[in-house]
Amino acid sequence: MVQSMPDVSPTKWHMAHVTWFFETFVLRPHLDEYQVKHPKYEFLFNSYYNAVGPQFSRPRRGLLTRPTVSDVREYRRYVDDAVERFLVDRGEEIAPELTQLIELGIQHEQQHQELILMDIKHVLSCNPLYPHYHESGPIPDSGSPGESVWTKFPEGLEMLGYSGDGFAYDNEMPEHRIFLEGFQVASRPVTNAEFLEFIEDGGYRDPAPWLADGWAVAREQRWEAPLYWTRQQSGWHEFTLGGLKRLNPHAPVCHVSYYEADAFASWAGARLPTEGEWERVVRDRPVEGNFVEGGWLHPEPGPAAGDGPHQLYGDVWEWTCSPYVPYPGFKAPEGAVGEYNGKFMCNQQVLRGGSCVTPLSHIRPTYRNFFYPHCRWQFAGIRLAANI
Amino acid sequence: MVQSMPDVSPTKWHMAHVTWFFETFVLRPHLDEYQVKHPKYEFLFNSYYNAVGPQFSRPRRGLLTRPTVSDVREYRRYVDDAVERFLVDRGEEIAPELTQLIELGIQHEQQHQELILMDIKHVLSCNPLYPHYHESGPIPDSGSPGESVWTKFPEGLEMLGYSGDGFAYDNEMPEHRIFLEGFQVASRPVTNAEFLEFIEDGGYRDPAPWLADGWAVAREQRWEAPLYWTRQQSGWHEFTLGGLKRLNPHAPVCHVSYYEADAFASWAGARLPTEGEWERVVRDRPVEGNFVEGGWLHPEPGPAAGDGPHQLYGDVWEWTCSPYVPYPGFKAPEGAVGEYNGKFMCNQQVLRGGSCVTPLSHIRPTYRNFFYPHCRWQFAGIRLAANI
Amino acid sequence: MVQSMPDVSPTKWHMAHVTWFFETFVLRPHLDEYQVKHPKYEFLFNSYYNAVGPQFSRPRRGLLTRPTVSDVREYRRYVDDAVERFLVDRGEEIAPELTQLIELGIQHEQQHQELILMDIKHVLSCNPLYPHYHESGPIPDSGSPGESVWTKFPEGLEMLGYSGDGFAYDNEMPEHRIFLEGFQVASRPVTNAEFLEFIEDGGYRDPAPWLADGWAVAREQRWEAPLYWTRQQSGWHEFTLGGLKRLNPHAPVCHVSYYEADAFASWAGARLPTEGEWERVVRDRPVEGNFVEGGWLHPEPGPAAGDGPHQLYGDVWEWTCSPYVPYPGFKAPEGAVGEYNGKFMCNQQVLRGGSCVTPLSHIRPTYRNFFYPHCRWQFAGIRLAANI
Amino acid sequence: MVQSMPDVSPTKWHMAHVTWFFETFVLRPHLDEYQVKHPKYEFLFNSYYNAVGPQFSRPRRGLLTRPTVSDVREYRRYVDDAVERFLVDRGEEIAPELTQLIELGIQHEQQHQELILMDIKHVLSCNPLYPHYHESGPIPDSGSPGESVWTKFPEGLEMLGYSGDGFAYDNEMPEHRIFLEGFQVASRPVTNAEFLEFIEDGGYRDPAPWLADGWAVAREQRWEAPLYWTRQQSGWHEFTLGGLKRLNPHAPVCHVSYYEADAFASWAGARLPTEGEWERVVRDRPVEGNFVEGGWLHPEPGPAAGDGPHQLYGDVWEWTCSPYVPYPGFKAPEGAVGEYNGKFMCNQQVLRGGSCVTPLSHIRPTYRNFFYPHCRWQFAGIRLAANI
Repeated sequence: MVQSMPDVSPTKWHMAHVTWFFETFVLRPHLDEYQVKHPKYEFLFNSYYNAVGPQFSRPRRGLLTRPTVSDVREYRRYVDDAVERFLVDRGEEIAPELTQLIELGIQHEQQHQELILMDIKHVLSCNPLYPHYHESGPIPDSGSPGESVWTKFPEGLEMLGYSGDGFAYDNEMPEHRIFLEGFQVASRPVTNAEFLEFIEDGGYRDPAPWLADGWAVAREQRWEAPLYWTRQQSGWHEFTLGGLKRLNPHAPVCHVSYYEADAFASWAGARLPTEGEWERVVRDRPVEGNFVEGGWLHPEPGPAAGDGPHQLYGDVWEWTCSPYVPYPGFKAPEGAVGEYNGKFMCNQQVLRGGSCVTPLSHIRPTYRNFFYPHCRWQFAGIRLAANI
Repeated sequence: MVQSMPDVSPTKWHMAHVTWFFETFVLRPHLDEYQVKHPKYEFLFNSYYNAVGPQFSRPRRGLLTRPTVSDVREYRRYVDDAVERFLVDRGEEIAPELTQLIELGIQHEQQHQELILMDIKHVLSCNPLYPHYHESGPIPDSGSPGESVWTKFPEGLEMLGYSGDGFAYDNEMPEHRIFLEGFQVASRPVTNAEFLEFIEDGGYRDPAPWLADGWAVAREQRWEAPLYWTRQQSGWHEFTLGGLKRLNPHAPVCHVSYYEADAFASWAGARLPTEGEWERVVRDRPVEGNFVEGGWLHPEPGPAAGDGPHQLYGDVWEWTCSPYVPYPGFKAPEGAVGEYNGKFMCNQQVLRGGSCVTPLSHIRPTYRNFFYPHCRWQFAGIRLAANI
Repeated sequence: MVQSMPDVSPTKWHMAHVTWFFETFVLRPHLDEYQVKHPKYEFLFNSYYNAVGPQFSRPRRGLLTRPTVSDVREYRRYVDDAVERFLVDRGEEIAPELTQLIELGIQHEQQHQELILMDIKHVLSCNPLYPHYHESGPIPDSGSPGESVWTKFPEGLEMLGYSGDGFAYDNEMPEHRIFLEGFQVASRPVTNAEFLEFIEDGGYRDPAPWLADGWAVAREQRWEAPLYWTRQQSGWHEFTLGGLKRLNPHAPVCHVSYYEADAFASWAGARLPTEGEWERVVRDRPVEGNFVEGGWLHPEPGPAAGDGPHQLYGDVWEWTCSPYVPYPGFKAPEGAVGEYNGKFMCNQQVLRGGSCVTPLSHIRPTYRNFFYPHCRWQFAGIRLAANI
Repeated sequence: MVQSMPDVSPTKWHMAHVTWFFETFVLRPHLDEYQVKHPKYEFLFNSYYNAVGPQFSRPRRGLLTRPTVSDVREYRRYVDDAVERFLVDRGEEIAPELTQLIELGIQHEQQHQELILMDIKHVLSCNPLYPHYHESGPIPDSGSPGESVWTKFPEGLEMLGYSGDGFAYDNEMPEHRIFLEGFQVASRPVTNAEFLEFIEDGGYRDPAPWLADGWAVAREQRWEAPLYWTRQQSGWHEFTLGGLKRLNPHAPVCHVSYYEADAFASWAGARLPTEGEWERVVRDRPVEGNFVEGGWLHPEPGPAAGDGPHQLYGDVWEWTCSPYVPYPGFKAPEGAVGEYNGKFMCNQQVLRGGSCVTPLSHIRPTYRNFFYPHCRWQFAGIRLAANI
């Protein structure tokens, strides 16, 4: 029920919000006799859809002691029942637009499942007792994954974006042509050990590798390490959903902002990949890795380097150096769902590949996630790229 | 578990804090074999005793999902048991200083019982569903208490402060002489109806009757009525611990800041009483009124005016125009309990008389409460005074 | 023309404001044919008189590049001429109320003369080149004034406030009776050397002697010494109107907030005097000392201790522990000049005695100055008192 | 000497800073015997070059009453003399790197000449007297430029960036290939009349066309029109460097943020051009228009629409929808001048074409200007584009 910063929402709120999404976009417009569960829930659980109506102040979501958790569970049952009845009643006749809305509601809920884990981790991290969300053993140390190696990709006209028949968000479309200069990409994400070298080399004290805005934030917030890292007498530890654990040097570094990712890359004499490059790299590779279904909920060390880029999916979202902008020809859908993605296409950076708290079934090669460059509570890491 | 502003603490925190008070000031120094319940509780539940050690950030108390409510109840039982055993074991031999500390612990807990009700009211008021804390009927309307009348008191050298053998806080002592000019005092607190006249006369739009600091706060916070008042189509309502209710014009106005109390008094051609005047007025009057024991938890209209000041105790704390300063010869106790009152003697105003959420047994004629002049979440009202 | 913080005003603004005061309170109401110099000057140079009209935002006074300094000088001549003509024309017939307003305008201007020096010092102090306002030699070291000694005053009913025929501000009246317990007062202000002992004893690192609000401000503002002190390799220096100078250990400490004065007094096992005590002490002593007329513009070491309190006037304003409140029976004048003092009687502390930048002719034994407890840019110091 | 917001610098500071630039990057490293004018000037007038050393706080530049304007003029003469002597002494032998640094110093100074006019306009606009910077007549009304028409450009692989032998900033290089979808662009910038339609249609009250971040800023800042617009009884006016003037409906709208430009475009059913599209459009067009050399210092209405895009240069900087990012293969120069552009490549948007306060000789087709999306004090306007 707690909200530890404006970006975080209480778990109860997430549950009510994804329920409200079905009520608002599926049931109310398409089920004539539908009665909303409570007239004020729309105000309380609308996140940001101005076309639907005004919203309860986001940073105050943690103040709502009512409805209670059991009220929200009942709300959920009420809406689930109505959706099920609706689907059964309509049977085959359901219009494709409606199917798409239901699909959108499910995909939307998957996004909030990831947010719930991010938010719970943040809330628990504020507590000096270091409570854990689930029991998990020490981070396994499978040994060093070895040096990262570069794989080269030649220049050329490439395709970017989604074009298939399945589900994809509006922001992944339309598929379009881009010209890529030749580039190279690292075989695996940057590890904690590598990031420690950056720290020990004064990475947080020297402005040289930083973007100006990044340096300003790092100074103001007194960053000295990734979020959730803490230096104890016995060495570096990190707070995880399984409690406070000794830092595994071989696992991918996680919970870094774009500013830290960019500064690390500059310090390392490299850069971050563009989203076009990233999508070129993953082409024809299967979507598999350490996702939420594995239940581990923390990035794992990768295997020893093979002969090409790997660990692209799962573990950590990979920051790209591409600002989140509409693809050429992008069109937001009509109506309130048009607010889903388009209005956020400014001031954010694209991340790719999913993380250890993302559902595997939620991810596609063309999937675009996005956060502000200062955000650190998502499970975000670093893959290096370079010009040839 | 929720904290709606920095001044508010979660109920769970209050319970743990008053428990910690006994652990810290009674058990640990006087019971050799005592084992603290948890080594981090001191950090979490120390409010402001620097001499005891560092404290968890006050505005972040609402983030502590652990210890849970049942953990805190168990902490309470653990400490209660230890105190009981201690008292039984020592029997008659308990030193007077120790008795005083236990008494202080009990008085301290009474203060937090009032704070719990204030804080719950504030938390619930943030919720547009207007949840109630307890079931209570409409505010009874016993009819108008009639016009307030003035009672005169002659000039003279008077005594101020506590001098008996019972319990009193350090800030009520020593008893000392003050010279009072002749003055007069109103027979009853200002009512909602009277305060509405102030509002309707432009009280919140005209800077003339306001203190400069008060006007600045009122503009910045966009005050237009006392806290918890809301104007609906059907007229003024106020949020109470029994939910949202129609404003009773005859009840004492409540939840006004010192700035509003002072502005009202200026507008009315009067002033607020000094604490010396207030204590002179209550001399020889019994401590009785609408206190928490009555269970009503809201100010009640007083009886029709009799032949002198009444309704001095209970219902609403009465703002005085006296800044909260030490009495001549004041000495804070040695050690950490010396931080109880003395270090707050700046920038606050004294209030007198207790309120409908104060325990009756907690109040004395010499009792000094204090809040910053902008605070409104305590049950504070207005009694007028004037020069002769 | 520069404004280094909201409390500071540009010198040009001060000059225009005191001019506007005569225009507004003397010329416009009493000189029928008077034409204001410029219709917008009232908006620009009204400080806080709501009854006169709206005011240009105080923290933005430094943005006004027009009117220029020479425009303001011309405004001044214009108003001076009009006042002179007015006085000559009226001759003997001038009503006493009008004489009082002119007197008030002159006294008001003296206050701004002190503010101008305070404000210039603050502006120059922001510049790492340490520019000086006037040429002055090193702070003379006349040797140590010796130990401070206590003088005792017996308990009794005393008079406080002004009752004569001369000019006094409304806040000094009416004269009234107070009862004082017996007390003692230090023979001289606290010196820099004594304050250094406080610093070296950890005064800014230990919360014990501080008021809670003071400690919070000191932490937030990272205070480590009085304002304008700076520790250099060669030792402590202080910025003065004559530039950066080596700290003279024997001069009175200056530019301390009320919080620092109170913490110092607690640390020293003493307290600050009340304003009643201070006024009792100065009774029958001549008003003389290091005032602005001496041209030194900095506190000077006092003479070796004689047989009683001295150096009460000039050098540094002396913080009292009395909050700035109206005297019993206080009445603000009718009309806009009623805003001069009364509306500030909250949240501030009284200071007494004048300083090295105050005009001698401006000071009386009953003179009450007042600042917020966190303010440090006024020339304020410390005199200790204690109970007997 | 005044600084009206953190982004603004005093004119005196600009003059000292561009002087310092020559001292730091030309004289000190290349002229052995060179003595800096003053050891503290580096600290005071270094803008953001961390590799050179620490910097005086940017938002406090307006507090520096010393060095005075004449001190700075003397500093300028001192450095000018040294540079001239240096150039004469070296004659033909000057290394190309050094020539480039001198060229960079001159280009840098041109940028600050534009900033000076922007900053003076902002400072004067804070003054309710509406002072003017220069005398200029009413904005001429040459009649309506007529409807804007679209010109189409076909899809294709295009070149973006600078490749010639002349001067260009590092951020314009390297020239590289991009793929453009077919697009169309408006013949002229959006006019005040067109922007008024947006306002009158509720453009500032309806969140629908706005980016989420833009709407938040517009609400918080209470935007209701472009910066410097003010609605008077007689109609809309705008503050110009020639004082307050009646709004010319046919002139290009100016002083809009990216958020307003983007919202206007959405409202108009169009979008902003990418910088690649913009550069494609201007190819082979001469750089000419209403630049600072014309002395008018305000956007002018364009001619009646001809048969293609015009008014691309001068008048107003045109917001593009391209975030300011490095071109593929971008390399910042070695050393402190590498901080000139690269570290700002985040969170900003590219603008193209120069404005009425830009030197004509400063602009190239490939010139990239950049501001944060909320900034409005630069002379920025809107050109629409659309998909085909």
